[in-house]
Amino acid sequence: MANTKEEFKQLIEDVQSQDWYRNPIGFGIARIDRGQLDSSKVLQATFPIINWNENFGSAAVLLNALKIAGENVDTKGTELVCNISDVFLEECVKAFSPYISEAKGEDHKNVQVISTLASLPIDSGFTADDYKAVFIFEDENAQSVETSYLKLYALSTGKAAIRSLNLNGIFGQLHNVAWTGSTPIELDWLRANEIALKLSGKYPTIDMVDKFPRFLSHVIPADNTRILETSKVRMGAQLAAGTTVMPGAAYINFNAGTEGSVMVEGRISSSAVVGAGSDVGGGASILGVLSGTDGVPVSIGENTLLGANSCTGTAIGDACILDAGVTILPGTKITLSEKAVAAIAEANPEKEIKTLMRGMDFLGVNGVHFRQNSVNGQIIAMRSTREIKLNADLH
Amino acid sequence: MANTKEEFKQLIEDVQSQDWYRNPIGFGIARIDRGQLDSSKVLQATFPIINWNENFGSAAVLLNALKIAGENVDTKGTELVCNISDVFLEECVKAFSPYISEAKGEDHKNVQVISTLASLPIDSGFTADDYKAVFIFEDENAQSVETSYLKLYALSTGKAAIRSLNLNGIFGQLHNVAWTGSTPIELDWLRANEIALKLSGKYPTIDMVDKFPRFLSHVIPADNTRILETSKVRMGAQLAAGTTVMPGAAYINFNAGTEGSVMVEGRISSSAVVGAGSDVGGGASILGVLSGTDGVPVSIGENTLLGANSCTGTAIGDACILDAGVTILPGTKITLSEKAVAAIAEANPEKEIKTLMRGMDFLGVNGVHFRQNSVNGQIIAMRSTREIKLNADLH
Amino acid sequence: MANTKEEFKQLIEDVQSQDWYRNPIGFGIARIDRGQLDSSKVLQATFPIINWNENFGSAAVLLNALKIAGENVDTKGTELVCNISDVFLEECVKAFSPYISEAKGEDHKNVQVISTLASLPIDSGFTADDYKAVFIFEDENAQSVETSYLKLYALSTGKAAIRSLNLNGIFGQLHNVAWTGSTPIELDWLRANEIALKLSGKYPTIDMVDKFPRFLSHVIPADNTRILETSKVRMGAQLAAGTTVMPGAAYINFNAGTEGSVMVEGRISSSAVVGAGSDVGGGASILGVLSGTDGVPVSIGENTLLGANSCTGTAIGDACILDAGVTILPGTKITLSEKAVAAIAEANPEKEIKTLMRGMDFLGVNGVHFRQNSVNGQIIAMRSTREIKLNADLH
Repeated sequence: MANTKEEFKQLIEDVQSQDWYRNPIGFGIARIDRGQLDSSKVLQATFPIINWNENFGSAAVLLNALKIAGENVDTKGTELVCNISDVFLEECVKAFSPYISEAKGEDHKNVQVISTLASLPIDSGFTADDYKAVFIFEDENAQSVETSYLKLYALSTGKAAIRSLNLNGIFGQLHNVAWTGSTPIELDWLRANEIALKLSGKYPTIDMVDKFPRFLSHVIPADNTRILETSKVRMGAQLAAGTTVMPGAAYINFNAGTEGSVMVEGRISSSAVVGAGSDVGGGASILGVLSGTDGVPVSIGENTLLGANSCTGTAIGDACILDAGVTILPGTKITLSEKAVAAIAEANPEKEIKTLMRGMDFLGVNGVHFRQNSVNGQIIAMRSTREIKLNADLH
Repeated sequence: MANTKEEFKQLIEDVQSQDWYRNPIGFGIARIDRGQLDSSKVLQATFPIINWNENFGSAAVLLNALKIAGENVDTKGTELVCNISDVFLEECVKAFSPYISEAKGEDHKNVQVISTLASLPIDSGFTADDYKAVFIFEDENAQSVETSYLKLYALSTGKAAIRSLNLNGIFGQLHNVAWTGSTPIELDWLRANEIALKLSGKYPTIDMVDKFPRFLSHVIPADNTRILETSKVRMGAQLAAGTTVMPGAAYINFNAGTEGSVMVEGRISSSAVVGAGSDVGGGASILGVLSGTDGVPVSIGENTLLGANSCTGTAIGDACILDAGVTILPGTKITLSEKAVAAIAEANPEKEIKTLMRGMDFLGVNGVHFRQNSVNGQIIAMRSTREIKLNADLH
Repeated sequence: MANTKEEFKQLIEDVQSQDWYRNPIGFGIARIDRGQLDSSKVLQATFPIINWNENFGSAAVLLNALKIAGENVDTKGTELVCNISDVFLEECVKAFSPYISEAKGEDHKNVQVISTLASLPIDSGFTADDYKAVFIFEDENAQSVETSYLKLYALSTGKAAIRSLNLNGIFGQLHNVAWTGSTPIELDWLRANEIALKLSGKYPTIDMVDKFPRFLSHVIPADNTRILETSKVRMGAQLAAGTTVMPGAAYINFNAGTEGSVMVEGRISSSAVVGAGSDVGGGASILGVLSGTDGVPVSIGENTLLGANSCTGTAIGDACILDAGVTILPGTKITLSEKAVAAIAEANPEKEIKTLMRGMDFLGVNGVHFRQNSVNGQIIAMRSTREIKLNADLH
């Protein structure tokens, strides 16, 4: 029991100094949805708050409480998923007691989670069995639904950078299920009950069938972020504040997204990233590593416009314009006039600019306007009219 | 109190002749949704019926009743939003009494609104505080959420023409909120309650995050109009009867839409208008004034086909065809054969047709087929095979 | 009454040998949704199970029971829709009695439907009037909502091949209605109640307005099929197991779909079919017979890639690649080098390959890579790098 913050600090140090203890990369407590037919199947994990390379004191409290509660707290593996119990909650409450009264609003979110769990009404329909304490110690292949979700949360809350996590194995862990709103339903349960549900008028409205949930079912975006249709952003995507996602042809896959205020009316495939101030026009396609690129994840720079129905399978720099309807793949031959070579070279003194380049040669080249000459069909590049902003962090 | 229609007419004349009185451009009574945390914030206004340059008798009744009820009825401003009260409702009922018995179906909708409000059951959960009487006297920048909605309703009900209203300031008035179905939720409320909602399994399904609601949450389309997915049409869009909006890549933004039966499988950006009988093919993009046009709102004529994945940033006339995949921007150079010049000139005797034109030169030119020559990549124009229909209203 | 399976068999033979009897092509029992204003209008028919060229024993039981129950069982017409009654259910139960105890899981689904109907609780809110027995005897124009749905089910469950059914008249039979979730609402009912619903905060969230429901409201896809947004697949579409439909610009219309595992990020128009292992890239458009094709329904072969924002209005063979952004219409002139002619001819010994071909000439030609030369704008074809798989069923 920690009666004071000083005692709390001491408790943490005690726990952290023990042999078995190890700081997790990420952790949190999740409510889980189980299969309707096979209750051992975890269909979804909902985290009210996640921790990522932070709040190690809370991690120590949770791991210690699990140990006291008799859980097998093996921190040697890459991850750990434990059941919670009344004993666990009591131990956490004891440890967190100096903080409980001030745990509100933005403060001490982990303490709020414990307090809320400890005070859930009896008739809430949930039991301790519906919650899990989830820890990732090493960024290896996820071995559970719970840690798969924890990684997706790390990406979608912006706590881990796009492309920074090992996401191998996630597709294997997650179950393909029907979703009614944010609730997952086993397809087999639907099959087993189809006749009764349909005849009684109780067949649920199915909004999608997928392994991943939607971003908005788990993440609250920033005040100036807009997502005009929930299906357009998959859980695991990352949207910087100020991003707008329109409902036409837009889609942002998991492990992809924006690094600043971006207007998204096109597709940002998995592993693609778009810089601040850029515009992904209506129906524009940024290809993923598996479809049309040369295997290098595509980055789009800052203040760049991808015109409507344009397509890019290669990196595009800052302050560029890709005209509506133009496609640039890694191998696309692009012709530059001498004047264009000079102007682009002036803006990119460290790059080699030539009169004939391939799409892939434009990696890191800023201020380029890609067009198709409408008189002779040639794909050309010239200096864009956009100013290349100096990045204050770099200059 | 008006006991007869004659007395009603007299009452209206009395009110209209008073110094303070002024006919509004638009008015209506709205139910409002307030912020869950900040109840002074109006998140949405729902109008069962709006009036636009019409029904001035009802306007006089409402304004007079507000005055009697003690509201500050200042008609000197550009707009007016007033609270309603029992006194207000009683005064309205008294004035409308000769019409109450015949107010049903399509008749006397404003009277129906008053009757319905006056008879709402005590346990409906709403109070007079949840309703507002809303008036616009001049089409200036909206200064409230309620008048912003009234303008969007004027557009979406077809009572005001697309591009005819001053919509400046609407983005500033509307709050960016989460929507579950048609109900707006403050993002801050979600944040304040995230832990409890998620742990208790009561986190709402969020369908979108936006300042604008969806068209179908407020407007009932014509019997032969189809909208295959609600997210595809923003409130403030206008769809003429017979329009079909498909769920692939379509989107119709506010202050944009169709003037007749149109098949929409692509994007109609804000301020763009498509004429009757035309077809916006799958993924076709009609650009808005801020992206790729020369600042002139784009109009598409009647009986014109924009092919799949085509893109236009400039006006296209009647009976035109833009081939699938072809992009016409204002500056696009388009080559015409002598034969094409002659045929198009014959169909457009008042226009100057040349062997090399820019996209913007085709403003008002009918019967043009825009293609890309697949042998030499040239963008060309020829006479389309479509007949140019004489507009019966004009000829 | 059939006490044994032997007696059941005898009963069926007796019924089938009677003059009036005729085996139906398809049949099933549907729960129907009626109009809120006009209850004679059937807005939707929901089948827990359909039969298509199968289970004629059950058909005989149902038709015989309808006859005993006094229904006008006219099997001379192309279709039959009958009311059900307690007498009908009792007769079915009597006939099916040897199978009732083993009717569970995947076995004896028609018997399960009868058992479930016979045991629906009194307070379920439904009466016999809410169910119909539906039969199609000839594949002629549908003459009812119920048989229109039965045909859509035959397609979407994969029991009838895409393009194999006569779907004429379906648009005429189905009513254009508003849908809240999977529930259809008459537009006129919304109009009649708009004022009361809006003022009382009970206006329903409308998800779409269409004649057709969505695929996922009626059909449970295979375990490895994913549909990331329900609006993207219309009822009447057919998705082979392993198909994935992404939420960006995808759409699959009725009487169209996939014949194997296909990634769908673009549009598959009505009557278009995509072969196993192919990929319809982001925003790619496969045109329907009414828009841009020469009237021949478009088939895409196996193991073929349609790149992002590509468009095809003509058939494409196996192992082909259509580059991102390239459009091939039936009349598109496509240039081949001598080397390309030789390589494609080698892979397609039975086809005539030339140095200049039209899009439509590639019908049945495999292993073609369609590109636009970015130096001179020419649309070219070369041998794709994809191996043409021998179809085991054919070789």
